[in-house]
Amino acid sequence: MALQVAFLLYDRFTTLDAVGPYEVLVQLPDVEPVFVAEQAGPVRNDAGGRNDSGACEIVAERSIDDVPSPDMLLVPGGLSTRDFLGHEPILEWIRGAHEGSRYTTSVCSGALLLAAAGVLDGLQATTHWLARDLLATYRVDVVEDRVVEQGKVITAAGVSAGIDMALRIVQMIYGDDVARAVQLGIEYDPQPPFDAGAPEKVSDELVAAVRGSMMARGTNWTP
Amino acid sequence: MALQVAFLLYDRFTTLDAVGPYEVLVQLPDVEPVFVAEQAGPVRNDAGGRNDSGACEIVAERSIDDVPSPDMLLVPGGLSTRDFLGHEPILEWIRGAHEGSRYTTSVCSGALLLAAAGVLDGLQATTHWLARDLLATYRVDVVEDRVVEQGKVITAAGVSAGIDMALRIVQMIYGDDVARAVQLGIEYDPQPPFDAGAPEKVSDELVAAVRGSMMARGTNWTP
Repeated sequence: MALQVAFLLYDRFTTLDAVGPYEVLVQLPDVEPVFVAEQAGPVRNDAGGRNDSGACEIVAERSIDDVPSPDMLLVPGGLSTRDFLGHEPILEWIRGAHEGSRYTTSVCSGALLLAAAGVLDGLQATTHWLARDLLATYRVDVVEDRVVEQGKVITAAGVSAGIDMALRIVQMIYGDDVARAVQLGIEYDPQPPFDAGAPEKVSDELVAAVRGSMMARGTNWTP
Repeated sequence: MALQVAFLLYDRFTTLDAVGPYEVLVQLPDVEPVFVAEQAGPVRNDAGGRNDSGACEIVAERSIDDVPSPDMLLVPGGLSTRDFLGHEPILEWIRGAHEGSRYTTSVCSGALLLAAAGVLDGLQATTHWLARDLLATYRVDVVEDRVVEQGKVITAAGVSAGIDMALRIVQMIYGDDVARAVQLGIEYDPQPPFDAGAPEKVSDELVAAVRGSMMARGTNWTP
């Protein structure tokens, strides 16, 4: 039976948060991915410069109203996340979709939207390291793991962590060999030039520099 | 000085091949990314099912004619790559852009397009493991590394390898600390559930299964 997976897009989302898990999941023939947004049509990501040049626009195939009950929802982060924490159309969709979902998931600061919708109440969750303090202002037990599973609610840390989360979900649904096959299909054999992917792995100066540069890029989820 | 990076899109490209490096590079304030295609407008990826449902469409902001001389070009792979190996408008753009580029790069089966354009003549290069045999039919010394640097020509292995390649390019241009900062910004601290990201790491049966499933999805770059 097909697994419909709805990827929520919203103005100034982070592209890789959505596309990483998407690329993992579409390796499977019985996954039906669909990009959704408040209105169908192109949605701008969070990397646009002046006049939006340099932005990556992904087309939302359908509106959230058209996809109320996906088997799985994935909420990406974005530099704009805080702008949507009181935005009822999005939060209502998350609540409704979560009710009947097999999996409710987020990547990066997308966890803030799950929290604002009440989905994370009383649960453990993870998020981008820069968004941990803000996430902790909700009724959420914030942990620093890369992927956190709480029954059907699964959250991933910043940006690239969505790839690991999606592989884990493939493992849960389809088993170890299928997860291995998908990993081989996207040749996910990571070899970054440095081991600098978490704040505890680098100097305090570097952490401060990244915090400053993310704020300069317009993130509004650092306290 | 801004670094203009042109990401080439074409019908049925692989989304993560382009978006992985894009997300790395847009962390830098002086990178000017631009998605280009033969015609500006939405370009469909290679994951669409019947009636193209489930496809991811990224909007090409400009046509290739409008961006003839980027500082860097990135050619992603796609299940359709072989369809474009004799397609002169794309190959001519690659040749022309390569002439004055600081970096000419590919991810996954995108190396086939660089080869078809003549850019890889006499050079070492890497590609998706399933495309190695086809790449070797060109005047290319195919190697199995994740990222291969030959002067300004840099090629990456399959799909997710573009993230590692982009971090390496950031390191070359901006230095170690900036590369570390970008890695921390996207929280790239990979923790896949398995160590199955390369054919030599899994069983022959699994390799055969992935080969079969990629062919079922319509890849035409396995011999």
